[in-house]
Amino acid sequence: MTLLVVGSVAFDDVETPFGRRDRVLGGSASYFSLSASRFVPVRVVAVVGEDFGPEQMRSFENRDIDLSGLVQKAGKSFHWKGAYGWDLNEAKTLETHLNVFADFKPDLPQDFRESDYLFLGNIDPTLQLDVVKQMKTRPKWIALDTMNYWIRGASEPLANILKEVDILLVNDAEVRELTREHSLLKAYRRVREMGPSTLVVKRGEYGVALFTPEGIFAAPAFPLEDVFDPTGAGDTFAGGFLGQLARLGRMDAPALKHATLAGTVMASFTVERFSTERLESLTNEELNARMASFSDMIRVEAL
Amino acid sequence: MTLLVVGSVAFDDVETPFGRRDRVLGGSASYFSLSASRFVPVRVVAVVGEDFGPEQMRSFENRDIDLSGLVQKAGKSFHWKGAYGWDLNEAKTLETHLNVFADFKPDLPQDFRESDYLFLGNIDPTLQLDVVKQMKTRPKWIALDTMNYWIRGASEPLANILKEVDILLVNDAEVRELTREHSLLKAYRRVREMGPSTLVVKRGEYGVALFTPEGIFAAPAFPLEDVFDPTGAGDTFAGGFLGQLARLGRMDAPALKHATLAGTVMASFTVERFSTERLESLTNEELNARMASFSDMIRVEAL
Repeated sequence: MTLLVVGSVAFDDVETPFGRRDRVLGGSASYFSLSASRFVPVRVVAVVGEDFGPEQMRSFENRDIDLSGLVQKAGKSFHWKGAYGWDLNEAKTLETHLNVFADFKPDLPQDFRESDYLFLGNIDPTLQLDVVKQMKTRPKWIALDTMNYWIRGASEPLANILKEVDILLVNDAEVRELTREHSLLKAYRRVREMGPSTLVVKRGEYGVALFTPEGIFAAPAFPLEDVFDPTGAGDTFAGGFLGQLARLGRMDAPALKHATLAGTVMASFTVERFSTERLESLTNEELNARMASFSDMIRVEAL
Repeated sequence: MTLLVVGSVAFDDVETPFGRRDRVLGGSASYFSLSASRFVPVRVVAVVGEDFGPEQMRSFENRDIDLSGLVQKAGKSFHWKGAYGWDLNEAKTLETHLNVFADFKPDLPQDFRESDYLFLGNIDPTLQLDVVKQMKTRPKWIALDTMNYWIRGASEPLANILKEVDILLVNDAEVRELTREHSLLKAYRRVREMGPSTLVVKRGEYGVALFTPEGIFAAPAFPLEDVFDPTGAGDTFAGGFLGQLARLGRMDAPALKHATLAGTVMASFTVERFSTERLESLTNEELNARMASFSDMIRVEAL
């Protein structure tokens, strides 16, 4: 069983009310693979520059992550600089240097072209479609993340790739802009017409709403004493959600609900520290304990 | 078993993107009693003016609501005018005319002074404390709603009444301002030091977070095709929550969770129409059907 992710691997400069870090590991494929590999073997396709060295590679060591699709190119790695205020729900982007990512043209290693499951991280929809075309066999499901930049500026390529997608993962504002519907129930109906059968709406500190052909589910975020750095929470959620879903090998409502719990718990660890620090230090015991306590938390016992 | 509410009964002028209504029934005690009386008998203490006539009284007819504490005074009733934009999460107050409510001094009918449960709606904390002093026997629990206006301007009287309170119902911003803690976990710890053992944080379209001595619970809002008018959602939630809690006669975590579901479902009806229209037309069959579908929605089945 293999889960392929195509996305970004980057350097981040992050400032929050609790401190700052410069040139730490970032990017959607980094958070996603460190999270998903807790559940299934992950294959990564991404591009880095010459500045990406052994220190960064160490973050992925001793995990079930195949980095043979991580290409190194002449130049610098993608570099993002952002800051958060006390309301940690939204990042303020200070600088974006695409560098080698500007010419990213995913070229899948031969064995990657037969992967069981596929996650298309938030990149140009034209590239996302190109990845799907490179697959020799159609994955059992394809999941996709996107953002307002592509919804506004690349609506036609996005419409084309969405026809191929089973699971769409976005936030409130994105799905409302994509569908031009404020009600999430109506938005979900539009999303189904566009292609995906399942919609996952990420709501930050308010948790996740899940729309499936069998019904709706919603889970709160795991309550934390302190949120330290929200960077990567969405991609970590996607990793836990899709990793668990791939592990279960089913796409019915009970499996999608359990996947939501796994994604929520993984994301709760990411935000406890800067960058991927907490994902790297996380033990299986800690993960299992929090999964159990989150399940208890949302359960309503019969009276 | 009786649940006493002290709060406001008012006329509202409301404008939303879907239309407007002038001089419709409003006020915390109106929404609360129409909601809570689905579960237990309710007693109302409030004040209205001479303009409050048979037409308004009809809204409370055929319900288990005792209005013998609804006093009519010379002058006009409390009148609120507000508007909502497309983001229905926050009302813009256009006008507030306290009228007879400015001199509201709750004077509880003798039989009301022995009620099993007490909800102190969002009024001056000094009056809230005065109500508690009028009780002949201490209610099994006392619940309280308040707002930033009192947190800022009446912090000492508020601190005094909070010592008497078991259940505090507020929104995110209010509990953060009250406790000066951003993390809701830390805020809850402070709330317990202030008096209440249970904290209910109302989050509008994102549902409710419940903090109890036995643990935490969170429930999403019931997803609706359209939210028509959010006025009264918080008081309707309080009515369903406390009505169900009084009916169950227990205050343990399972009872508090079931109460949260009842409050959430009641609030979902209120926002479907203007004013108390939907609360008045609601049948028991509709209520039971939505309770069942909401329970299904948030349940995570074993795999």
